[in-house]
Amino acid sequence: MDERKPSHYLALSGGVGGAKLALGLSKILSSEELTIVANTGDDFQHLGLTVCPDIDSLLYSLSETNNTELGWGQKGETWNFLEALEKLGGDSWFKLGDRDLATHILRSEKLKEGLSLTEVTKLLSRKMNIAHSILPMTDDQVRTVVDCVSVGALNFQNYFVKERCKPEVRSIYFSGIEKASLNPDLDRIISRGLSGVILCPSNPFLSIDPILSVNGFVDRIKTSDLPVVAVSNIIDGQAIKGPAAKMMKEFNIPQSVIGVARYYGENYPDLVSHFVLDKKDAHLEKEVCELGFSTLVTETMMTSLEHKIDLAKELIRFLAEALVR
Amino acid sequence: MDERKPSHYLALSGGVGGAKLALGLSKILSSEELTIVANTGDDFQHLGLTVCPDIDSLLYSLSETNNTELGWGQKGETWNFLEALEKLGGDSWFKLGDRDLATHILRSEKLKEGLSLTEVTKLLSRKMNIAHSILPMTDDQVRTVVDCVSVGALNFQNYFVKERCKPEVRSIYFSGIEKASLNPDLDRIISRGLSGVILCPSNPFLSIDPILSVNGFVDRIKTSDLPVVAVSNIIDGQAIKGPAAKMMKEFNIPQSVIGVARYYGENYPDLVSHFVLDKKDAHLEKEVCELGFSTLVTETMMTSLEHKIDLAKELIRFLAEALVR
Repeated sequence: MDERKPSHYLALSGGVGGAKLALGLSKILSSEELTIVANTGDDFQHLGLTVCPDIDSLLYSLSETNNTELGWGQKGETWNFLEALEKLGGDSWFKLGDRDLATHILRSEKLKEGLSLTEVTKLLSRKMNIAHSILPMTDDQVRTVVDCVSVGALNFQNYFVKERCKPEVRSIYFSGIEKASLNPDLDRIISRGLSGVILCPSNPFLSIDPILSVNGFVDRIKTSDLPVVAVSNIIDGQAIKGPAAKMMKEFNIPQSVIGVARYYGENYPDLVSHFVLDKKDAHLEKEVCELGFSTLVTETMMTSLEHKIDLAKELIRFLAEALVR
Repeated sequence: MDERKPSHYLALSGGVGGAKLALGLSKILSSEELTIVANTGDDFQHLGLTVCPDIDSLLYSLSETNNTELGWGQKGETWNFLEALEKLGGDSWFKLGDRDLATHILRSEKLKEGLSLTEVTKLLSRKMNIAHSILPMTDDQVRTVVDCVSVGALNFQNYFVKERCKPEVRSIYFSGIEKASLNPDLDRIISRGLSGVILCPSNPFLSIDPILSVNGFVDRIKTSDLPVVAVSNIIDGQAIKGPAAKMMKEFNIPQSVIGVARYYGENYPDLVSHFVLDKKDAHLEKEVCELGFSTLVTETMMTSLEHKIDLAKELIRFLAEALVR
């Protein structure tokens, strides 16, 4: 391990699941040691506002103002705006809470004033007393589109919230990705040298793929010859939250940790070196090893802050061992 | 009185004070007999939203969802958005309630979609179960600017809310008024024939002047040779709400019902024929008469729905007598 430069890790995250691990990592790594990269493919325009669900999940999680009962949004949230909007016949399928609205309105205003999404996210982070950098994967507009068997192409939030992930998915694409440049701050951080990259237990298709699809990102990581660890978002054949398992079935991918490992291995050859699977999937460790990954079997369910910190510690130890070898 | 055509009255209104009388009128006149014309000079862009305070006061008043404790906004309002916005360092001087926000967000969205302010106001009225038409004076953008002695020109809401009407006013102008066309619906209603026009007890300088300044409006009313009644917004030398009395002093206008009567008489010659003053100002009736107005002295404080209805009844009787004569 090169002792001259401080260690620095990137954590790639989607929304809630990823944000749990990001919070754990933020408790054991300083802001100089950790940068969180957020998926922006879920972003969308709604009621004239720019809504960035994954960035917001990270903001609320890292500021510990997230609503743990709902699993999304803010603590102590109220819904009087939404109730009034519904009465007026406005679009109320996307559940905008009263407090949450402040984030969207301020962000939209600042973007209109000409600030980049990175700058607005920094401003919001500062106001929420978050020390760690949350970087949007890109400042350019990328929009995840879910192409479904009978209903055709749906904007992500239409698929995810309005249609409750019911339509059968044929394919997913990221509109605008060809023209999207890697976040310049992220580019700089990679140039300074990393100790490892963590793919949080987020949906590979909807949360991690968009980040890995930004021009040049995967190449930059591969060139650095870094340990890259993926934490399985599937435990015992199930996704903790969201449509990942259902999608795997629709994509004819084994609905298990094997499916996740294979997906990363096949789609990003020579990128992911390490793989973390849950204790419940310990019997599949050998198979994951045979796919070419170094493996760690541990508790990956993060039901408390202690669990998040424990998993973060194990991960960093796992990556540090890789660097020593 | 021409018995062949049904009677139809126009009520010109600003915010809260005018809206009280408008509600009273709406309780004794059908939607075929009353149209309410709203000042739009107070409208402004805030946090990327189009806010129309006078239209909203009328909407909330006529739907009886207005907050009678605060004197503005909606009943049962909550402030969680504003609290969150404040924490994020956003502009929180204009008190946007959680429910109120739904009106502004829906309006802004519909305006962006290309609907006119008249169309959006109709849509909001329908959703709030308001039978009577509330018409913006114009669909074009007019913005009241308050030119102040030491601080210079302030946008109306900056003067009114942010500066709490403290700066000394030099003059008021309505930016965009030269290019503003009279609301086409209003034009049509005038063409069909009116029975009378009511200037509600709103601030003459800030609420009534903008409406009377829209191209062609005063001429159209004058040509029709209608009774036009002004209800004094000043009782016993005081404004019920807002800076009217303070402004009269700054403009060197007598701070009394005489000042109001003179202002209308001098600035709109041959327009206002009738004048309503409060019982407390009964001793000034003769002087108002001498200025050339037919007068009515009555209770003009509208502290209950009954008061609003009573004043509305008296007004309509007063105007009907003028038509009979």
